[in-house]
Amino acid sequence: MSEAIDQYVAENEARFLEELKELLRIPSISTLPENKEATHRAADFVADQLAAAGFPVVETIETERHPLVYAEWLHSPGKPTVLCYGHYDVQPPDPLELWVTPPFEPTERDGNLYARGSADDKGQMYSHIKAFEALRAVYGKPPVNIKVLIEGEEEVGGESVAAFVAANPEKLKADVALVSDTEMYEAGMPTLNIGLRGLVYMEIEARGPARDLHSGLYGGAAPNAVFGLVELLSKAKNANGHILIPGIYDDVESPSADEKASWTHLPFDEKEYLAKEVGSTELTGEPGYSVFERTWARPTFEVHGIAGGFTGAGAKTVIPATATAKVSIRLVPRQDPDKIVAAVRQFVKDNTPKGIQCEVRLLSAGPGLMVKTDHHAIQVAAKAFSDIFGKPTVFTRSGGSIPIVGDFATHLGIPTILMGFGLPDDGLHSPNEKYCIRNYFDGIRTLGHFFEEYAKA
Amino acid sequence: MSEAIDQYVAENEARFLEELKELLRIPSISTLPENKEATHRAADFVADQLAAAGFPVVETIETERHPLVYAEWLHSPGKPTVLCYGHYDVQPPDPLELWVTPPFEPTERDGNLYARGSADDKGQMYSHIKAFEALRAVYGKPPVNIKVLIEGEEEVGGESVAAFVAANPEKLKADVALVSDTEMYEAGMPTLNIGLRGLVYMEIEARGPARDLHSGLYGGAAPNAVFGLVELLSKAKNANGHILIPGIYDDVESPSADEKASWTHLPFDEKEYLAKEVGSTELTGEPGYSVFERTWARPTFEVHGIAGGFTGAGAKTVIPATATAKVSIRLVPRQDPDKIVAAVRQFVKDNTPKGIQCEVRLLSAGPGLMVKTDHHAIQVAAKAFSDIFGKPTVFTRSGGSIPIVGDFATHLGIPTILMGFGLPDDGLHSPNEKYCIRNYFDGIRTLGHFFEEYAKA
Repeated sequence: MSEAIDQYVAENEARFLEELKELLRIPSISTLPENKEATHRAADFVADQLAAAGFPVVETIETERHPLVYAEWLHSPGKPTVLCYGHYDVQPPDPLELWVTPPFEPTERDGNLYARGSADDKGQMYSHIKAFEALRAVYGKPPVNIKVLIEGEEEVGGESVAAFVAANPEKLKADVALVSDTEMYEAGMPTLNIGLRGLVYMEIEARGPARDLHSGLYGGAAPNAVFGLVELLSKAKNANGHILIPGIYDDVESPSADEKASWTHLPFDEKEYLAKEVGSTELTGEPGYSVFERTWARPTFEVHGIAGGFTGAGAKTVIPATATAKVSIRLVPRQDPDKIVAAVRQFVKDNTPKGIQCEVRLLSAGPGLMVKTDHHAIQVAAKAFSDIFGKPTVFTRSGGSIPIVGDFATHLGIPTILMGFGLPDDGLHSPNEKYCIRNYFDGIRTLGHFFEEYAKA
Repeated sequence: MSEAIDQYVAENEARFLEELKELLRIPSISTLPENKEATHRAADFVADQLAAAGFPVVETIETERHPLVYAEWLHSPGKPTVLCYGHYDVQPPDPLELWVTPPFEPTERDGNLYARGSADDKGQMYSHIKAFEALRAVYGKPPVNIKVLIEGEEEVGGESVAAFVAANPEKLKADVALVSDTEMYEAGMPTLNIGLRGLVYMEIEARGPARDLHSGLYGGAAPNAVFGLVELLSKAKNANGHILIPGIYDDVESPSADEKASWTHLPFDEKEYLAKEVGSTELTGEPGYSVFERTWARPTFEVHGIAGGFTGAGAKTVIPATATAKVSIRLVPRQDPDKIVAAVRQFVKDNTPKGIQCEVRLLSAGPGLMVKTDHHAIQVAAKAFSDIFGKPTVFTRSGGSIPIVGDFATHLGIPTILMGFGLPDDGLHSPNEKYCIRNYFDGIRTLGHFFEEYAKA
């Protein structure tokens, strides 16, 4: 059956690439208010292409910021329903001077297509639409029921889509979600991401004296808000990276022996990782855990930023009145964000130094997520990926968070297949972002093949 | 004799106040390169006023940063020579939004003059010039020999004046130095400061990964520069305020039993000090030491400012590549600044966390100092102060540092009279700094009276 899809894709490669370039020329930078017209244009382009691919229902839904595009094609009674998600918005291209060719003039070089959003996520999102087009060409319609939800605020927090999912569980009801917004472990290696860490992000503000004091006159007797915050934060984690906040590890689930064993087969060079990716003198983290475990399967406590007192050039001898830190805890599956937030609040209460008052402000909280590898849709996706790329599919996790996956789990009760065709060197959010053109076509083929196989279930 | 001075001051109060306001309007913030024009303007103002007060020699001396003003009036053969010092530069006014009236628009409220630098040190420094003017009006010239040295870098380390003093011991030769840059113990209580803490001020920069990393992808394995700095700083001092840097307490000299006993007679209400001055929930510091001992006679470690990572609004999940803290140690007499700097460097070396690299930059270093109360000039000053304010003069120390006092001791071999007219609630270095207008005039009278009395010796 795949041969028909393959043939259709092969015959239409040139047009598929031109259409993607057209989408990439639209500077749909969601964080810039002045690009509002562009985000609307990108939404319209996506809606038009979904209609052209045959979707009988296509809606453009206005939000407080950038429009959502929703489409459905539910003409396969008795077959499962897949909710496909993607985003048409992109990161700002700065610093512009580092781009070899302009970010919104898609350019082919060495088998790659260079443009802002080529991999994240226009190229991957658009491959879904082209897969639907191919399925329609071959079968007249997709072999399963399809719902599509494309947003334009992924790079700015995704508030509108989160609210939409929460408010429309019936409309979005499906058996599984499918997202192509991740990367393959390395070129040619089919990869399904089956675990994401969650995130609890907080701001801690420490207040000491009523105002900044002269450190000569009051030093020795007055509390210092910066030092108070330093004392507090230093107690949150030890030198080995082990979090000292009571209760944090209570519900942490270790990866299975099988999963851990599978990670040892992934190609990984710690020296190269240290030198080329991290760029510090040493790696840090919990002894007895591999880098994969530390970054994929262990909670972490990080201070993302800290500010307080005098930080200009030269010297000012103040005892600072206030200091603020942005901190987060990454969560692994089974950890309850509410429980973690409560644990942090209790820790701050119990460890606030003498003379200091601390306020904890919660900015966001979402759980870690895992999809079971024996879930049927995952099995089918792994096989389809493997069939097209000719290698066994590996299961990895990501230490990062994709909030929409949590929204699908919470409000729709469905797992998400993270089937991405990006590569580790695509340069997401960086100058010279690119997408491998071969992966674009193979992604369309893989997606088409997945829908075919999933219909047989 | 004092009546004539008193009368001259009384007749000229309005003009003296207007002239001071003119000086206070000049934003001579020495730490900001963009205010260079203003510091020059302040120096010119001071030089012009010294000339107007009758000084036959007035020199403006360019330096690498801000000009020095030197003047001399040596027409009293056989009489002692007093070297008067002050500074025309001021601290930055931040945070601006906390000022009731703008920092460089001097405003009278409730008998005070509000402006940055009103007490520290323009108001006090200018009272010297007005005392000279009064002495000239009454006697045609000051009754002792006067040398004046006014600098513009006191708030940024005073490098130029230190170099000038070191290079010109013959030019600056005097019997005693006189500085009005301190405060009275409480309103109406004449106070001579006989002890100062020294200061070693440093910047510590921590570097972790080569660039800011995504905390989802690298969190758990990559070093965090902010947390590394937090870990390091937290080890410098314990929760009781005891410094943990090895060697810091080696040469600390305790105050004599007599001096400690005299402090117990100073009016002091710890609750009021906490509520009105410090404004925090509790005082901090070393158990077993009084507040006077903690702030006057014990070394302290403070973090004046800290910055690193993302500190804007909202959330950004970075592992910061760099973080910087400004720190200082206040020194008591007998502690050697060089030894203390070496101890801090060694401490940082020994305690830099894994994966982090730290750089220590020394911004300034000066020793603590004491003047003997039986010195003749101190005795005369105490009497003059007492005569004008109608109360016995008390001897206190300050926890602050006046590096020039150390330079005068080292290079000129002379003690310094610290005769200040500030008040404890003047808010030096803080928003809404003010100077009591009555003290401004009484300061001029006291200084005039001191010169009269010192001439009789």
